[in-house]
Order: sequence, then C-alpha cells, then structure tokens
Amino acid sequence: MSKTRVGIINVTGYAGVELARLLYQHPEVELISVTGRSAAGQRLGKVFPHLAGITLTIEAELGDVDLAFSAMPHRESANEVVHLVDRGIKVVDISADFRLKDAAQYPQWYGFTHPAPQLLKQAVYGLTELHRSQVASARLVANPGCYPAGAILALAPAVKAGIIEPDIIVDSKSGVSGAGRTVSLPTHFPEANEDVSAYALEGHRHLPEITQELGLLYPGQSLSVTFVPHLIPMTRGILTTGYASLVSGKVTAGEKGRDELMHLYLDFYQDEPFVKVVDSSPHTKHTWGNNLCLIHPTIDYRTGKLIVISCIDNLVKGAAGQAVQNMNLMLGLPETTGLEALAIYP
Amino acid sequence: MSKTRVGIINVTGYAGVELARLLYQHPEVELISVTGRSAAGQRLGKVFPHLAGITLTIEAELGDVDLAFSAMPHRESANEVVHLVDRGIKVVDISADFRLKDAAQYPQWYGFTHPAPQLLKQAVYGLTELHRSQVASARLVANPGCYPAGAILALAPAVKAGIIEPDIIVDSKSGVSGAGRTVSLPTHFPEANEDVSAYALEGHRHLPEITQELGLLYPGQSLSVTFVPHLIPMTRGILTTGYASLVSGKVTAGEKGRDELMHLYLDFYQDEPFVKVVDSSPHTKHTWGNNLCLIHPTIDYRTGKLIVISCIDNLVKGAAGQAVQNMNLMLGLPETTGLEALAIYP
Amino acid sequence: MSKTRVGIINVTGYAGVELARLLYQHPEVELISVTGRSAAGQRLGKVFPHLAGITLTIEAELGDVDLAFSAMPHRESANEVVHLVDRGIKVVDISADFRLKDAAQYPQWYGFTHPAPQLLKQAVYGLTELHRSQVASARLVANPGCYPAGAILALAPAVKAGIIEPDIIVDSKSGVSGAGRTVSLPTHFPEANEDVSAYALEGHRHLPEITQELGLLYPGQSLSVTFVPHLIPMTRGILTTGYASLVSGKVTAGEKGRDELMHLYLDFYQDEPFVKVVDSSPHTKHTWGNNLCLIHPTIDYRTGKLIVISCIDNLVKGAAGQAVQNMNLMLGLPETTGLEALAIYP
Amino acid sequence: MSKTRVGIINVTGYAGVELARLLYQHPEVELISVTGRSAAGQRLGKVFPHLAGITLTIEAELGDVDLAFSAMPHRESANEVVHLVDRGIKVVDISADFRLKDAAQYPQWYGFTHPAPQLLKQAVYGLTELHRSQVASARLVANPGCYPAGAILALAPAVKAGIIEPDIIVDSKSGVSGAGRTVSLPTHFPEANEDVSAYALEGHRHLPEITQELGLLYPGQSLSVTFVPHLIPMTRGILTTGYASLVSGKVTAGEKGRDELMHLYLDFYQDEPFVKVVDSSPHTKHTWGNNLCLIHPTIDYRTGKLIVISCIDNLVKGAAGQAVQNMNLMLGLPETTGLEALAIYP
Repeated sequence: MSKTRVGIINVTGYAGVELARLLYQHPEVELISVTGRSAAGQRLGKVFPHLAGITLTIEAELGDVDLAFSAMPHRESANEVVHLVDRGIKVVDISADFRLKDAAQYPQWYGFTHPAPQLLKQAVYGLTELHRSQVASARLVANPGCYPAGAILALAPAVKAGIIEPDIIVDSKSGVSGAGRTVSLPTHFPEANEDVSAYALEGHRHLPEITQELGLLYPGQSLSVTFVPHLIPMTRGILTTGYASLVSGKVTAGEKGRDELMHLYLDFYQDEPFVKVVDSSPHTKHTWGNNLCLIHPTIDYRTGKLIVISCIDNLVKGAAGQAVQNMNLMLGLPETTGLEALAIYP
Repeated sequence: MSKTRVGIINVTGYAGVELARLLYQHPEVELISVTGRSAAGQRLGKVFPHLAGITLTIEAELGDVDLAFSAMPHRESANEVVHLVDRGIKVVDISADFRLKDAAQYPQWYGFTHPAPQLLKQAVYGLTELHRSQVASARLVANPGCYPAGAILALAPAVKAGIIEPDIIVDSKSGVSGAGRTVSLPTHFPEANEDVSAYALEGHRHLPEITQELGLLYPGQSLSVTFVPHLIPMTRGILTTGYASLVSGKVTAGEKGRDELMHLYLDFYQDEPFVKVVDSSPHTKHTWGNNLCLIHPTIDYRTGKLIVISCIDNLVKGAAGQAVQNMNLMLGLPETTGLEALAIYP
Repeated sequence: MSKTRVGIINVTGYAGVELARLLYQHPEVELISVTGRSAAGQRLGKVFPHLAGITLTIEAELGDVDLAFSAMPHRESANEVVHLVDRGIKVVDISADFRLKDAAQYPQWYGFTHPAPQLLKQAVYGLTELHRSQVASARLVANPGCYPAGAILALAPAVKAGIIEPDIIVDSKSGVSGAGRTVSLPTHFPEANEDVSAYALEGHRHLPEITQELGLLYPGQSLSVTFVPHLIPMTRGILTTGYASLVSGKVTAGEKGRDELMHLYLDFYQDEPFVKVVDSSPHTKHTWGNNLCLIHPTIDYRTGKLIVISCIDNLVKGAAGQAVQNMNLMLGLPETTGLEALAIYP
Repeated sequence: MSKTRVGIINVTGYAGVELARLLYQHPEVELISVTGRSAAGQRLGKVFPHLAGITLTIEAELGDVDLAFSAMPHRESANEVVHLVDRGIKVVDISADFRLKDAAQYPQWYGFTHPAPQLLKQAVYGLTELHRSQVASARLVANPGCYPAGAILALAPAVKAGIIEPDIIVDSKSGVSGAGRTVSLPTHFPEANEDVSAYALEGHRHLPEITQELGLLYPGQSLSVTFVPHLIPMTRGILTTGYASLVSGKVTAGEKGRDELMHLYLDFYQDEPFVKVVDSSPHTKHTWGNNLCLIHPTIDYRTGKLIVISCIDNLVKGAAGQAVQNMNLMLGLPETTGLEALAIYP
C-alpha cells in the first residue's frame, strides 16, 4: 500500500523544520512537498543542513498531498487553510487561526477579522488528550499553542474534578525557540543569554486558548486565568507552574491529600502515551526532542494551594510532535507512530 | 585617618569571593583578612585568579578586624558569630543563622537548635530598605537570603498599603550560582544547561524569611505565602514574579489603577539608591554585577490581580552587595560607597 | 527470529545512557541487561527519567548477553573485558583500554600496566570508516575516543594522500558532556558557563590514539601531532580545526586547488553513510543527537595551509553511536540500523 | 580643575555602551555627549536600562568635547574622524578605519578606498603595550580589533625574541557579542546556543592587523599567519590559542626551556598593568568585565611547538577598555585610571 502523501506549508520556521524532521522519520507517511516563500527554489538540505537527508526542494506552491500542515504566520494561514479544506485536503494548522471558537476574539487578540468563521466551528482544537475522538474524524485540526499545550494538560484534571477554585495562576518559562526563527533584539544571543524576563504582561495571545479549553472542563462557572510567560536562556522547553486554591473539603488534609491528588492525575492520564504523571519535580531536559508532557501535581499544605508543574519540548509536544500525533489519528494510524523517540539527555 | 579593617570568614564560596571583590574596590575600608578551611595557606589570588590583585593569603583564623562578614554555612556560622559579637566585633552574617526572629523555626527549617536565641533578638534583618535605622546602630546584621531580598522588595509596598489580599504567590527564577560553589549533580553543567526545573516544592528555607518580613508590614492579620523557586540555566540573577488578588475598592479600575499602583511603588522607594521602580518589564541582565533591584508592578485587569516583577543579581543585592550596603550604614559611611558600579551589559 | 541480546556494563555515565537510548530504539537488538555499581537495584527509568520507557533494573552483574558494551572507566574496563572475551561474548569497549596497540603506552598515558597485552593485538580500533572489514569480524572492538573520532576523520584523507607535511596542529573545542557525568569544579555550571579554556597542555590522553591512527595512513615516516583541547560552554558537540602545511606541488595553486582537495575528500568518504563532506563551514549543531561527522576541508592560499573542520556529537559519533555502528557490523546488520535519526535543530 | 569632556559617536553598539559604562565611572573625565542615529532624541537610560544612572540624551550630533570616541561602522567612521581631527579634537577610533598602515589594504579587506590615506600615517595603532609613547602623543589612535588585541599580545614576545619560525597558527574562540548588536540569523539565540562553528575561512578582516603588528616585531623577514576565528556560545570573551614551531637551538630542551619561555614573557610584560603572564591555562571568565589580558606560554616538547593561550574580554581589553587605556595616555592620566575593576566571577 502506498504511503499517505503529506506536505508542509512554510517549512522555514522552527515548527516547520521540526515537522520535516519528524515526518521524514515517520514510517507510514511520505513527506513529498514543502513550501516557503523566500527560500523557494533551494534544496531543503541546503537551507537546513540537518535535513540534508531529505531530498526535497522548497517550492512556492504545495504539491499534491492528502494532508497538509500549515506553519504559516497567523492571518495568512487562515486564507491558505480555507483553500486547502475546500479542495478536500485534510489540514493540521500550526498557526492560531482556528484555535479560538469565538470569531470575535480574533480582532482583539490577533488584530484581524477572521475570514472563515464558519470553519472555526468545524475545526477541532488539537490537544489530543482532550479531544481525541473529534480529532480522529476532523478535516481541520487547530494545533494548540506551545504555552497552552503545557498549561492545559497541567490543570485539566484538577479543573475537571472541581477541586480548585476558578482563579488560576499560570507562570510559564519558555526557551527562546518559542519566539520563532525570525531574528529580533530580544532573541539576539548576547541579549537573551544570562537573562530572564517576563513579557506580554498586558496579556499574551495564548491566554484565550487556555481559558477556552479549561473553561470547557468547568461548565457553568467562569474561569479566571492569570498567565505570565517568561523567556529563559535555553533553546527548547517550557516549564509551566500552575497555582490555584484548593476547594475546601474536596481533598483530604495532610499527606493523604497528596496521594489523592496524584491518583486523580494518574487516573486522568492513565492511558495517555504522551502524558506522564511523575512523582518528583520534572525537568524540561527530560522531554528534550520528544513528544512527552511530564506533570507533577502537589499541594502546599501551609497555604492550601495546588501546585502543578508541567514540562514539554515546545517544538515537539508544543508544536510539531503534537501535529504529528493529530495527523496519526486523522489518518487512522496508531497515535504514537513516528513519535517513539526518547528524549535526548543530557 | 586609617581605614576600617574588615575581614571575611569563609571566603571560598561565591558570596565570599564576591564580597572580596567589592571590598577590594571599596574606598573606605580595608580588607585585611580572609579565612577558609580547605584553602588555608594559599594565596587568595591563586585559588581565585580574578582576585589576583588582592595580595592576601587565606588564613585559618580571622585577623584583627573591626567588622567581619561571616560567609560560613548555616549552623556553623551561628557559633562563629557568637564569639565575634562577644569580642565586640561588628558582624554581617551572610548565613541564615540570625534571620529568623523565632528560634523555634531553626529546628524545623534548618535542622538545628539555635545556640544563641538571645542574639536573635539583637540581630537586625539586613534588608536595608526596610530596617535602615536599626541596621545603622546594629552590632549584628543578618543579611537576607537571595530569594527573600527580591521577593520582599517586590511585595512590600503593596502589602504595607493593604491593597492586596494576604494570599501571595511568589514564583522565583534563579541562576545557578545561587546554589553555591559546592559541586552537585543538579548543578553539573550538562545537567543544568538547557533545562529548567522547580525545586523545594515541600517548602524552601527562604519561605519563613519572606513571611516574617512581609508579615511585619501587615500586622494583625496572617499572611499566606506560596513560594516556588526554579533553577534557570544562567550564572547570576533572580527574577521574582509575585501574584496577589487586589482588595476590592482599593485601586481604581482601568488604566488609572495602574498609575496609582506605579505611584505607590515610586513613593515607597523614592529615596532608595538601590531600588528602581521601572515602567516596563525588567531583565535580570540589567542588574548583572551591581546592587540594584528593579521592580515593575502592574495589574491584570481581567483577573484583578497584582503582578509584580523584581530583578536582582543574587550575588550582589542578593548577598555581597547587600552586605556591603549594611556595612556602610554600620560604619556611618554613605550607603552607596563602593557600590556605584553599573551593571555589565550585555 | 529472536533479536540479539545485548547489555551495557556501567550504564550510569553519559556514554552509557546514550547507548541505552540508542539501543532501545534499535530494531534488531534487544537491550536486556544494564549494570552499575552505585545504582544497582534501582529502575533505570527512576535514575534517568528520559529512559522511563525502558523497563530494566540496573543490576550488579551483567545478564546473559551475546554482545556487551563496556562503559567502565579505563583500567577497570580491561579486566572486565578480558572475562567477557574469555566467555565468548563479543565486546565493544567504550573505554580506552584496547585502543592503543603498544602496551607500553598504557603506563605513560593511563598510569597502569596493561593486564592483557595479547588482547591488544586482537582488538580492532573501531573507527569504522578506517577499519570496517576488521570490525566486522572482530570479537573485541575498541571504540575511539571522542576527540580522536573527529580529528582522525578530519585528517585521514589528507594524510593518506600525502598532500600535507607530517606536522599537524589539532585544535579541538568540546562541549562539557565530554568530561563525563562525574561532578567537578571545572564542570560546575557557574564555572563552565560563560567561559572558554584550554586544558591538558602537557598532553591529552587522546593524543596517542590520533598519532597511532594517522600514522597507519602514513607509513614509513613519523608524524608529529600537536593537540590542544578546549572546554566550551555547551552540552554536546566537538568541533576540531586541523592545520597542516601543504606539500609543495601536490595541490594546484588557486581555486582549482580547493576543488582538488574537496574531490579528494569526497572520494575518500564517498560511500560512507555517516561522514559528509560539506562545502561550507559546518556547525556542531547540525550533528546534535545523531551519528554524522561533517567535514569541510579548505586551503589558506596566503600561507599554504590545509585547514579542515570537523563536527560531531561527542556522545554519538564520538561514543555511543559509533559503538552501535560497530555493533551493527559485528552482528552482520546493515551499518546504519538504528542510527538513522536526523540531528535535532535548533 | 574641570574634567576633560569626552563624547561617544554611535553609542548604540556594544562597544559604545561599554565605553559609556566605563567613562561614567571614570574619575577624571566627564562623558558629556553621546550620539546615535536611530535612537537620537531618546534618553540613553531608556534605550539601555543598565545605563539609567547616566542622565544623557542620545543626540544626532556630537557636543563640544575635547576627545571623542568613534564607534561608527568602518568606512563611515573614517569620514567622521577626518572632521574631528580637523577640528582639533583628539580621537580614539574604535572602528578599523585607521588600523592598517597601507591604504591599499582597505579596498581588499573592507571594500572601500580610504578617504584620508595621509591620516593613516599619523594614526597610532592603539595596542598600548606595543606603542605606548606614540599613543601618549597621538591625536588619532586606531583602537585594535578584538581578535588582534588578544592574538598580538600572545605572540609578540616570542616573535620579538626570534624564538619561533615565522609561520604562525592563530585559532581564536570568541563570544557572540563580538559580532555586534545588529541582529542576524547566526547570532539568533537558538542558532548560536549549543553550537560552535568556525567562520571567515576565506580570510578574516582582522588578519592584516595581526600580520602588520607582529611583522613590525620581526623586521626583515616575512611573517605568515593563518587565522581562524570561531563563534562560541557565550556573551563575552576571546580565547586565542597560538601555535608556532620553535627555532632550533633558541630554547633549551626540557623543563628548563619552559622556564626560559616563561621568563621571556614575564620580562616582556613586567611593568604592564593589564597583561598578566600566568603559570596555568587561563580562563576567559577571569577577565570578564575588566581590562586584563591573561597569557600562558608553554612548549609541546613532543613536537617542538610553542603554544600560547591568551584570554581577554572582547568588549573591554578587546574594545572599550583598551580605548579608555589609550585615552588615559593621550590625556596624561595614569594609564589605569577608571580601569581598576576586578573581573566578575563567576
């Protein structure tokens, strides 16, 4: 049987090349076309030497594929995706353009009026662990943002179980590749090295995603999320620390409460191949290059707070790996196909 | 007039050598003695090449000084300090041994019974900005921990003004030098590089300091502080992100509220030479090597939360620089003497 | 057909865990036993969370395997290997204990008298590209040191072709994982970060390997190699810059000479799956996590010098990947089996 | 007596801001004017928060100064400097525009015809240690490039003493700030982090400087220098490793030869405040933020090679600190004024 033919639109960003790396190693699909404007006409392996094993040339237009990944910037991606869906091509959109269900949020958070609000309803938010069956039958999957992937997985079990007050602090620490491949002063090596800073204090674009998805687990009550992202001098990885007050009486006091919490999380993710609930504070390094999300929930008894730590590789579970996980489901393949690599340590 | 003679006990840790660096450049005191057990008998500049300009030999016993800095490990420092105070020598203790007012906390947090509880009462907590006049007349100053320095300065104005609920989240990100010069697996370069992790989720020793000092500003009500430190792949710097709910009605809604908050902070620190309230999110890099604490307070209107960011160099304002600032006051010198260096950028 | 059973002696160093990672993903062998003294009795995935997918327990003694990797320290490995070979188990020795053909060099460079000089003759130096057929039939392969792997591959074509004078400078830059997992002050994060230094100026243990192997390609004349290694603030990667004077008249002057040189290298490595001769200056990043060696030879016409740059991942082509490459040949498997992963970028 | 008034043209690069930092702390001069095109009109401390203590506004035109530093890009600097010299203002030019004595080299290396060849003769190459008396009386000093500063100081004693063959290898490792503050893909954090690469293999612009200055010490014979710079994932620092064959018979064989070499270097730099000959392999970290050059010469007896290691902070001794050192001499001040700061460690 011939392999499914897939392509990447705008391969030249970090999510795009990470997709190319993963798809090249995928046994059940064939990467047959990659596009990119400025680099069109060049061999992929010339522009990205680590991909020299892939003998594709970057094209201006996508070839004839069964499924496409769009790694276009937001706004541009929406227009491209509309055409692909019209042509019957399955799409995983890495951009933010189909993540928010409410079209009214696009002008506010992304500065444009959404060109295809009707498609927003069809689109499935591609955090597989929360929407697995819908992803499997979707024609268009909106791949989650890197921060939301780690934050939502960290908090979903507690929110769903109703053990925390609906007032959540999400403090995230991200490696610099999360800012993309486009050069800028804050990501210039001498500026970002030996430095930590918080940013987007006025509100980061990933906030509405986090609120939307956690809100789905907490129907009937509004959820307040305070989200502050930080830039960390490393290339890959996001560690998210979530804080919320425990609802009185829902969790037993003392060490027994921690056990209950751990079991709640273990149960929630018991069959998940890519989410591991761990019993000590995790390190982003332990997910470096692979598709795992490591989660450690605990309780601060002094203050009655839930503290949850999650770690992902922002370019894998936070982008390209998650996209392949979604593709696998959309194509009826085992979910883990091509995503079995262990993290690279140290 | 001859300069005041000062010495450093246990110069061989990072706080100790940073003190040596600062004191060597100090125009009004003379560093005449440094001790260290394992390195005793060696030239300071041989063990620490960057200090080659200082012609001292590391000794087993402290020479005849007017003021001593103890950079001993906790527990050991207490015993040493008792003797120094008995001999009439002024002391700045870099260790934790005289920071907590309540002797009962030492067994719990540091695992030993305090040998001189009576001295705890005399000792002044040396966060100069909060206890300036007491520091000036103190014989024994307990220099703050690195995390508390940044966290307390970040939150003190809001706590004192009563604009926040007494339930505070402190999420801190520290460079690896904060873990000291003693080698360990978590601070081995290949482990700490390209990694972020949270630690001490059971409760970090710096928590009681933070609670004690903020509590003094909030008399009559108990204060709940949830504190999670994180290890960041850089050498120097601590960024602390503080979160708390605003008390309803205390701050005007909308942009005007942010202005009020900014003025509250500007007023609180208006005459402080080493605390700068800044109008955008600060970077630890902008304090690299100097004694500044940069603070940026803001409000998340969506959630009614105060967010405060503070940045310090953990070895300067978080240790040795703060100690020199205290020494200056104790000796009747202008507070900024020897601490005027700008941060080194990039 | 059942898979070949393999094991790792002393899995707890960086080479050992990298071997475990690669062997776990290898389709034709089964990792059935790993040993380690201090960690014996613990689950591998507990000590190394990135290996949690491997359900082995670290043992005190190696199980019943067909082929063993020894990642013991030098001297200890020799004794272990002797027993394994006696029992008819094929061995790839990651240590230095069987790399040098001349037993007399062990006291000088490694400080011990070799316990099995007769085995030195049988042992094959496992730089596959130079000794492929011998590796295929070997019972004992001595896996190359990390520096020699990159240095020998960089210079072999020029030495063999006789185009350079036998007086070679090898200046290598290594990431800190090359120093191993044992903690030390020079590899403590705050010391190694933001620092570069040269070391082993008196002579590094990898020098005799380089001289031995390049000497084999240059029979009848003695070869002089000056080798200086440098420690670089990164985790993985070795870049080696080799310098030598071109023999007069052997390479055409001008741009044509560079072409000749490039073709000489391309021819030498034309069928090699893991050595790529590239036409611009390579980056260690482009080999991060995979088994490639990238080589760029050029000529400085001003000075008549050959300059060759090579890049490898010190833990893959410089250790564990090279070991798997050797194992594949020893087991009659395709040489690239289990080593197809692309480098991870960025 | 009023202080000498100095200014910085194009303060907005890394050399420019480092100059501002040093001059602000200088007790004998007053920084009264800084210029910069894109940032003109903004407060210096707004654009560079670490300079918030300096109350200057960035101007379009330089104010009325006695001495100016030009930190303009090459080619543009030459034109600016000509005007300044015409107006009788003393100048230290940080650019390359007056470093090369032979005007014919500018088209070849810098791509422009020099607009003021006559000024090249007047200009003094500002490596103070080699041209001290000329610097003291100069109206125009050409501040050395960062690589030449470390390379020339490393090799000058050996070249001058005639103990090495005139065929020198210079292998340099530089932190990323050496590439300047202008953003680019190779200096984008995710690209430069965890990576080492060689560059400018066709010939780096700093080569003719090195050759010119070492050639002056070796009259009557032509000197061949092979120079390869490397980019290292750190912010500041250059380590240079120099290699050359010892002239037979000039240095005693054995350990005594190393002593002779050490004494040759110690004698050469015996009165130099900023060059320290050290007896073990130096680290760039030990010069972090200060004006020292650390040099360690040794001999590889196996190969008869001189090996010299030098370390500098590329922005201090390699740029701004060297410029202040030159300024001090030009103004008749003690050479070390304002440059006494110790390196910051760790």
